[in-house]
Amino acid sequence: MKQENCIVGQSGGPTVAINASLAGIIASRSFKNVYGMLYGIEGLLNGNITNLSALNNDKFINELTHTPAMYLGSCRYKLPNSQQVYDKVFNIFKKHNITTMFYIGGNDSMDTVLKLSKVAPPDIKILGIPKTIDNDLPLTDYTPGYGSAAKYIATTFLEIAHDAYTYNLASITIVEVMGRNAGWLTAAASLARTNYCAAPHLIYLPEIPFCLNKFVEDVIEIQKQHRIIVIAVSEGIKDIQGEYISAETETVDAFGHHQLCGVAKVLESRLRDEVDCKIRSIEINVLQRSSAHCASSVDIQGAFSLGTAAVAAALDGETGKMMCFNRLSNSPYKYEIVSKDIFSIANLEKPFPAEWIFNSDVSQAYIEYALPLIQGEAKSRYENGIPVYCDIAHLMQK
Amino acid sequence: MKQENCIVGQSGGPTVAINASLAGIIASRSFKNVYGMLYGIEGLLNGNITNLSALNNDKFINELTHTPAMYLGSCRYKLPNSQQVYDKVFNIFKKHNITTMFYIGGNDSMDTVLKLSKVAPPDIKILGIPKTIDNDLPLTDYTPGYGSAAKYIATTFLEIAHDAYTYNLASITIVEVMGRNAGWLTAAASLARTNYCAAPHLIYLPEIPFCLNKFVEDVIEIQKQHRIIVIAVSEGIKDIQGEYISAETETVDAFGHHQLCGVAKVLESRLRDEVDCKIRSIEINVLQRSSAHCASSVDIQGAFSLGTAAVAAALDGETGKMMCFNRLSNSPYKYEIVSKDIFSIANLEKPFPAEWIFNSDVSQAYIEYALPLIQGEAKSRYENGIPVYCDIAHLMQK
Repeated sequence: MKQENCIVGQSGGPTVAINASLAGIIASRSFKNVYGMLYGIEGLLNGNITNLSALNNDKFINELTHTPAMYLGSCRYKLPNSQQVYDKVFNIFKKHNITTMFYIGGNDSMDTVLKLSKVAPPDIKILGIPKTIDNDLPLTDYTPGYGSAAKYIATTFLEIAHDAYTYNLASITIVEVMGRNAGWLTAAASLARTNYCAAPHLIYLPEIPFCLNKFVEDVIEIQKQHRIIVIAVSEGIKDIQGEYISAETETVDAFGHHQLCGVAKVLESRLRDEVDCKIRSIEINVLQRSSAHCASSVDIQGAFSLGTAAVAAALDGETGKMMCFNRLSNSPYKYEIVSKDIFSIANLEKPFPAEWIFNSDVSQAYIEYALPLIQGEAKSRYENGIPVYCDIAHLMQK
Repeated sequence: MKQENCIVGQSGGPTVAINASLAGIIASRSFKNVYGMLYGIEGLLNGNITNLSALNNDKFINELTHTPAMYLGSCRYKLPNSQQVYDKVFNIFKKHNITTMFYIGGNDSMDTVLKLSKVAPPDIKILGIPKTIDNDLPLTDYTPGYGSAAKYIATTFLEIAHDAYTYNLASITIVEVMGRNAGWLTAAASLARTNYCAAPHLIYLPEIPFCLNKFVEDVIEIQKQHRIIVIAVSEGIKDIQGEYISAETETVDAFGHHQLCGVAKVLESRLRDEVDCKIRSIEINVLQRSSAHCASSVDIQGAFSLGTAAVAAALDGETGKMMCFNRLSNSPYKYEIVSKDIFSIANLEKPFPAEWIFNSDVSQAYIEYALPLIQGEAKSRYENGIPVYCDIAHLMQK
């Protein structure tokens, strides 16, 4: 064990796998002390640090591995290009004998890794660990959190399909999925298909300009073959001018507030003009990023391994890198973990491949890519009928 | 085994436990043939019958037990008081040598059991088996489907709380729960509480008149102690005049449609006028009635046992009854299954007990009642990363 200390931060939006990477770092027992920034780099700058070393026991590590969202809290903070701020960070490191910083996050968080690693003193290592349900970080096969969100989305679409087939009447169910400008999450709805059920029958990703008239045509066409239709639509679909569809319809409520309708509600409204059947819309909302009770083992174990590998990379003297999955084969699913330069990753987005999209659907190539990532059920311990997650009371006092 | 046949129908809204009761009936092997009505009594009247006997094998019974919604399809059909219709039903029974009918459903479905049992020929037995996530049937300790929905709601509230505590800022999350005029489902949010997390901090059931001004006061008061607040609200809350709160705010979208806002959106709107912090609203929607991947073992096993017990009651010559759980003790949880007269059940609602509601919360008595019902994780088999449910393709052709 080194006589030095490390610090870990978590940043950006929640996933159910981000704590598994933290668990991997703590469990590696390679540093004298493992500190945590509370609420990411913003919290660090406010002196908000906790010592996690005492928590390194099997029970805690196991609970942490399965706990959703950020055990350490998060921030959405863009580090300013300011020597004063950098000095503040490295002075805190010096004070606590911290030689390595791990930052677990998405695109924006990797910007923090890039900035700090560029100006860090030579003895300081800064390493990024990816996570985002959006799966839109370049150079890594996938980002932890995506596999579990995809598993939840696939399971939920299958269950929504069973619900939709209950009544003997024509119906359309529109389900809105997260993912901002990347279609990865919405594409995961395709993993719900079984030999008996074609739902979702239509899939709309934000990578392809969305046309409301074409959408209506698609629905009317698919109704010729299917009485009951389930549609997956990304929250981020835009028209040919690049305007969000969700912004097209602004509703005004009784209090005079303008509310931005979700895109599923917009499509529901439009279909009511054109199609005479039962229509409903469902927003899966934050459940798709927080449902740790439905996490994928492959995803959670992958996230844990990235934490372990990041520690090994730091001990090897690496810095200014992000840990990445490099897939070796689909079936059996095999991968290696490699580190890649942060400047090729930070602030860049990996869109859903255009060649995997056709006719309001995704291709078999996507299915082969995604299937390995949703395998296995990551099991929490249950107590009083609900999963046992880590105590987050320490955050509430800050 | 009797040389007679029985028929089973499922009716009303989906739950994840209704197929377990069907499985219990099929697995009892007490009838020569087990027929199923497709799409309930309405389907029967259209001659929509299937023979389920060939499906009686362990693999199918196990899959059926864990499959959400209605394997046989459902209807919302109020049987008319018409001798002609009754004759039609009993002629179909005669033609297929059917001597027993099991009808699995909620309040409205028990009306069908009541009507048919009143006019049935002496050799015909008509028995009801309860199911509804709303838990609002009288005389039974609980209704199958409620335990699983409650487990899903508790788990989801816990995970939403973890999500809400991610950022270092004041926030309010309003979560809308189903249950029509009964508060049972919304009350289940209280089961999410742990020793580290008081969420949901406020719970609003439809049994108590809702006042928007009082709601704002409650929120401002609770904000003095909690920076991050999670609120559970029933879709069915009404004001003192008995008007639904969800109807108060009507939104008009760009297409000129009037949309009925969900109640969570209404409360979100109102809070924006009064409170300066991040506010979001979430509608759990049909996921709470279809998430078989998060079902309660106690609930599923209970539903299966009701099916078995209904068969035994029919063989004993009972008719015009509904099978009920009679709780013997909370801890350890023990119950017996008894049959009760259908006329004391049909068309009646069991509201959430007034004495279990206080100060925008539920009492410990509710917790002690509900905890046994969410115990155990009913496990499906998984394939390709998603649960294996029964093939519902047979419904799609009808």
